[in-house]
This record gives sequence, C-alpha cells and structure tokens, in this order.
Amino acid sequence: RINGDRLWDSLMEMAKIGPGVAGGNNRQTLTDEDAEGRALFQKWCEEAGCTMGLDQMGNMFAMRPGTDPDALPVYVGSHLDTQPTGGKYDGVLGVLGALEIIRTLNDLGIKTKHPIVATNWTNEEGTRFAPAMLASGVFAGIHTQDWAYDREDAEGKKFGDELQRIGWRGDEEVGARKMHAFFELHIEQGPILEAEGKDIGVVTHGQGLSWTQVTVTGKDAHTGSTPMPMRKNAGLAMARILEKVDEIAWSHAPHAVGAAGHIDVYPNSRNVIPGKVVFTVDFRSPELDVIKDMENRLRVAAEDIVDEMGLQVEFEKVGGFDPVKFDETCVAAVRNAAERLGYSHTNIISGAGHDACWINRVAPTAMVMCPCVDGLSHNEAEEISKEWATAGADVLFHAVVETAEI
Amino acid sequence: RINGDRLWDSLMEMAKIGPGVAGGNNRQTLTDEDAEGRALFQKWCEEAGCTMGLDQMGNMFAMRPGTDPDALPVYVGSHLDTQPTGGKYDGVLGVLGALEIIRTLNDLGIKTKHPIVATNWTNEEGTRFAPAMLASGVFAGIHTQDWAYDREDAEGKKFGDELQRIGWRGDEEVGARKMHAFFELHIEQGPILEAEGKDIGVVTHGQGLSWTQVTVTGKDAHTGSTPMPMRKNAGLAMARILEKVDEIAWSHAPHAVGAAGHIDVYPNSRNVIPGKVVFTVDFRSPELDVIKDMENRLRVAAEDIVDEMGLQVEFEKVGGFDPVKFDETCVAAVRNAAERLGYSHTNIISGAGHDACWINRVAPTAMVMCPCVDGLSHNEAEEISKEWATAGADVLFHAVVETAEI
Ligand SMILES: NC(=O)NCCC(=O)O
Ligand SMILES: NC(=O)NCCC(=O)O
Repeated sequence: RINGDRLWDSLMEMAKIGPGVAGGNNRQTLTDEDAEGRALFQKWCEEAGCTMGLDQMGNMFAMRPGTDPDALPVYVGSHLDTQPTGGKYDGVLGVLGALEIIRTLNDLGIKTKHPIVATNWTNEEGTRFAPAMLASGVFAGIHTQDWAYDREDAEGKKFGDELQRIGWRGDEEVGARKMHAFFELHIEQGPILEAEGKDIGVVTHGQGLSWTQVTVTGKDAHTGSTPMPMRKNAGLAMARILEKVDEIAWSHAPHAVGAAGHIDVYPNSRNVIPGKVVFTVDFRSPELDVIKDMENRLRVAAEDIVDEMGLQVEFEKVGGFDPVKFDETCVAAVRNAAERLGYSHTNIISGAGHDACWINRVAPTAMVMCPCVDGLSHNEAEEISKEWATAGADVLFHAVVETAEI
Repeated sequence: RINGDRLWDSLMEMAKIGPGVAGGNNRQTLTDEDAEGRALFQKWCEEAGCTMGLDQMGNMFAMRPGTDPDALPVYVGSHLDTQPTGGKYDGVLGVLGALEIIRTLNDLGIKTKHPIVATNWTNEEGTRFAPAMLASGVFAGIHTQDWAYDREDAEGKKFGDELQRIGWRGDEEVGARKMHAFFELHIEQGPILEAEGKDIGVVTHGQGLSWTQVTVTGKDAHTGSTPMPMRKNAGLAMARILEKVDEIAWSHAPHAVGAAGHIDVYPNSRNVIPGKVVFTVDFRSPELDVIKDMENRLRVAAEDIVDEMGLQVEFEKVGGFDPVKFDETCVAAVRNAAERLGYSHTNIISGAGHDACWINRVAPTAMVMCPCVDGLSHNEAEEISKEWATAGADVLFHAVVETAEI
C-alpha cells in the first residue's frame, strides 16, 4: 500500500504554488507558477532517485530504472497545470500519485522488470492555449510540434515562446519514447462515483469532445441613437445561439453535454452594440455520431440565426477528439487491483478529456478515477478526501506494478 | 461664416493622436493619448489668445474675454475622449467647433459682450469609467467629486488616480463657474438627418438612459463531466436575459431601444461552465415612464430566469439620466441661426447622452447636430463630410455669437 499521508502532504505542498483566490489554484500552463511547480516535482523525483527527461514540448519524464535493459517503461502520470480558477487535485493527483508509487517501491526495496516513468504532460487544460491535452497530442502524433508552438494565448503570446521563456523546453524529440503501457489516475470531475458510494472508477471509455469557435460579426454602433431595426447586434445573435447549444445538448441527454465557457465581446463597451463576438462551444458525448450531429446542428442553427438578423458567422474547430476505448488488459489490471485491495469499484466513462485519451493511440492505456465532492471540478472549491486519494493511488500502484512486473 | 477647411484640418490633426485599428480613434479618457489630445487643444487655444482654466475633474475651459466685465460667459464645447473603437468626430467636432468659433471671431476682429469659453469635458464616453458624462455630471451637481474619483476601470484603476497620473487634475473647484448659456455641437450618431436630407438638427430634447449592471452567479464546473441537470450555467442565463432585453425594447419601439454592449464572463475558459457573468443593459427612451417600465421588466424577467435555473442575480444601476428638454431660448437661437444661414433643418431628439444633458440642469443649454454617414457612430468607420461639419459649426457660431451679444 502507498503512503496516503505522504501523498496528501505533497498535494498540499504543490498547492502552495500559484494559489487561487478562493482556496484553489491558478497555475496555468507556461506561467512562472507552472515553472515553479515543475521545479518542485523535479526536485522530489530526483530525491526519489529518478533521472528527469524533458522533451521539446516540455513534457517531463522521471525514470526509475527496471531490471531488464530491454523492457519498455511503464509510464504513469497526468498534468500539473491548472485552470485559472482550478482545484488542487485535477491533474496534480495523477502526477504526485505516480511519484508516490516510486517512493513506495523505494520504501519496500522492490525492483520492477520494466522501468517506471512518472510523467507530467504540458498544457493539459487548454485554457491559455487551446486545444486541451496539447503536448500529449503532439506526443501521440495528433498535432505537429510546429503547429503547437504557434498556438497563441489571449495576449497573442505563442506557446513555443512561452515554453522557452519559462526555461522548460527540452531537447528530446517528442514522441520518440516507446511505452509498454500508460496509466493515469485522475479525480472523476463528475458526480457518479460519490453518488454510487464507490471508491474507484475503472475507466473503460472516454467521451469525445468537439470545440467549435464561433465568430459572429455584426456592426459596432451606438446603443442610444441606432434605431432597433438598424441594429446588427452580434451579442444578441450569440445569445440566441447559446440557447440553441443548450437545446441541442439536451436533445441527446443523458448521452451528451454542451455549453460555452469562453465568450469575448467586442469592443465590450456599455454604449456600443457589439460588432463582434467570439465564443467556443464545447460539445461532448461518448458516441461519435452524436458529436457530429451536434456540430452540424450548431452550424445550421447559427447560420439561420445570423441570416435572419443580417449578420455573419464563421466557425473554426479549435479542439476535439473522438470517443476513446481504453486497452482491455490495462483496464483489467485496474479492476483486478481494486478487487484485490478490497475497494468498491464500478466501470465509468470519463466525462473529461485526459492525456490518457491521446496516449491510448500509441500505447496500451487505462485510467483510475477517484470521487470528488459534489462532482465539482474546474472550480477552486474542488475537493477530495485523503481516503479517496489514497485508494486511487493504491489501485494505481498495484495496476502499475502488475504491469511492470516484479 | 467659419473656416471649414481650418476646422477640418484640426479634426484630422487631432485624429492622429490615439489612432484606432481601422481608421478611427482609441483615445479613451485619462490615457496617455487623452493627455496628448488635451495638450494639443491647449496649445491651439493659447495660440488663439485664450487662457486655459482646469478644474479638479480635468474639465478644460479656454476663455476668450468679453467686453462687459459683469457678463457671464457663454460656454461652448463637448469632449475629446473616444470609445475604444471610436470615430474621429464624436465629441471632437464639438470641441474643435468651439475653437473654430474663437478663431473666426479673431479673424473678423469681433468682440463679444459675454466671454466665450471653449470647453472639453472629461470622460464623456463612460467606457473606461462608468457612467458616461461623468465630469459634466459632477459639474452639474449630479455626482459628488469623491464618488467620481472612486470610479474604477476594468483593471481596478481609479478615476482620481488616473487623472492625477496623466497630469490633468486642476485646482479649480468643479461647478463653481456660472454660465450665461451652454451650446454643444455634435454629430447625430443616428440616421435621421441623413435620411431626411437635412443639414442641421435643432435638438429640442434628449432621450433618457438607464444602465443596469446585471451580475448572474452560477457555479464554475467542468463542461465535460458535469451532467446537464447539475449545471448552473451563468452564461446561459445571460443569453436568456439578453433575449428578454431585446423583446422589452421592441415592445416600446420606436420609442425605446435596448442592448447590452458590455459582457464579461468568468472564468472565461473553454472547458469551464461560466460561474459568473457581469453585463450592462442599456435602455433608452424619450419617455421617463417607458424607461422605468423597461428597468422593472428587466428585473422581473431576470429574476424569473435565474429562479427557474437555480442561479442568483444582482442588479446595480451604474448610470442614467432622465429625458431632457433643452432651453427654449437657446434652442430658438440654434433654429434662427440655421434659418438665417439658409441651412435645411429639423427638430430632433438626441438618441445619445451628451454633456449638454447635464449642463442643461445648471444653465440654459441647447445643441446643434449635423448628420453622419449611415447613422454610424461608436465605430471606427464613423464618417461625416466637411460640408456637414462646416454647416454645424456655422450654426453653432451664429447661435453662440447671438447669445454672447456683439
Ligand atoms: N481533465 C480535464 O479537465 N481536462 C481538460 C480537458 C477537458 O476539457 O476535458
Ligand atoms: N454621445 C455619446 O456617445 N455619448 C456617450 C454617452 C451615451 O452612451 O449616450
């Protein structure tokens, strides 16, 4: 069994870096706080006897050697970056859970045949630079590195430049590493495990995602002196499209969700009718057909709305991945571990996207989930109990060690 | 007659300060660009033989002396600040039109009984610091100076501090000046004069305004893993409220308008359901009852919408003024001037708020309007012809000189 107190202490220590305003964290990717969190993780890994690898996307790989020089490593990890108003556990539990496995193996003096590599993937959240899971996506060959480097934040800063600036751009070629398997522990970020009173979610699938950035163009005009019939109010068109997004998602409930989290209004002045609005619609479903249907209906509905109002609309797909089915052997390793350790468990579909969803394309992959209070995540009030964290890390430990072979 | 070429050249010269991105201007109040625009205006006024007064709100008063030491001055002016994506004429025409009157009187060697004061009012636009017409409002005793100094921009900077920073806080007590009359020349910012083919709008009334800042509070949550029924989506509530705003304004059309130009979504991340949205609803009407009705219906509708969704809403009135009736004698002076000069003219109600609306409370006031292309304003593409500007300034000249007495 892993050391739950030590894991918890490390979680609390990491949470001191980039504190939020309401008890959570703001440690967005490629900020100075991200650099500080990375340095602490590196220090801990080196103290645990690992050697750190760093690739050109800033992905961090802390290796504990195995006994067989020919055996590919088992990778374990998640991400240390957070939302602007994020929690202390989303991603971090998976990275520090991986570290805890290595610390426990050290305590017990256990050697594994396959090396074990605790991993931190860069820019999982995708808030500062869309899309989410950017660096694991490059690792899995989904995006090119050049394209990733060109992603811009809201201030026009480029991913590549910011990675360089914070000093965490490595030399290693991205995706060159071959994996025996990949495991990721993550909080559920949803309400199911807590509601069902289960300690562990055995993640069999991940739902797919589609991010459509919608740009509605109307005409800046005076809110006072422009008669109602002459207005080209891009804000009003956005309002109508958002109502449709909700309607479309509900039409597939409970097998789909939809919302817009990102909305920018231009010029954003109280007495100027918005001439432009840019917003991103997030649709998800475990079924690819449903995602495609929602994307299409969004486009049709938005075109109809702007046509009727005499405005223009453009769409850009800024993120997305198809629904994922995880590797049966790895999933079985997770289920067996929970069983063996006596934790209650259930199969679950991940509602969120994870680095594991991309890595699953290039290596046998599975995920372990633990509950979170009220299913709340992407909120500073995100909370889990030490017992939940411990159970999750215990299951991760057993699944990984079984796969890495003693 | 005034010198239309000289007026136009000055307009083009001023427009070089704080250029926009699309041919207009971004010279928002209390920015470095505002300071630069003020300095140019001061230089021109001093070259025209005026002495500059500066009050504690940064209002600028360039005085051309009169012949009667006991006669109160006739004030003429508008504002030099612009919207973030503003035009070259909104406000500026009125200030430089006032300067052109003084230059023309100098050319003609005419002395007036009453002094004439070319005036620049601080923060008319209200974009950076709500409400609009802030400094003329303090001058007219509507707001206290302390309250005005405490207004904050989106970055939390205070009006008083920024006024000090740019070096345009004067010593003079605000509102201490007594006025014989006040005249303001302004572009219409609406489509009526152009559509009717009139050179001049004789402004008899100004419509009233109400700015209600609406804060909807929901709950930040993950867009992927939060089931539809558990969501508290403040962005969706906003969308529904915006639809109501439009419906309410149309229900009183053509005697009312309504829209939201300012919308801020928090935390504004693609994969976070918005936990908070702050936006400002702008309602206007020439009838006070209609404004009150729209304000009330907004509150009722918004309460209903958030109640049904399990969210919260708060309202704050961040700006407003009642409909205005301008001084009959001053209005007649404008009409007589247009008549005498042979310009076609019509009575008009101002759709926008103006410093004249506040000054009307403390001095006999009237306004002159000239057309603008397609009624477009609060847009960088705002355009007027040199002929329109010349006609407006000619009428202003005659109305002011008649009132200031030769
Ligand atoms: N786990 C997580 O929140 N990932 C961010 C990508 C997503 O929006 O699902
Ligand atoms: N004239 C003008 O645009 N004033 C700003 C105040 C308003 O919104 O009406």
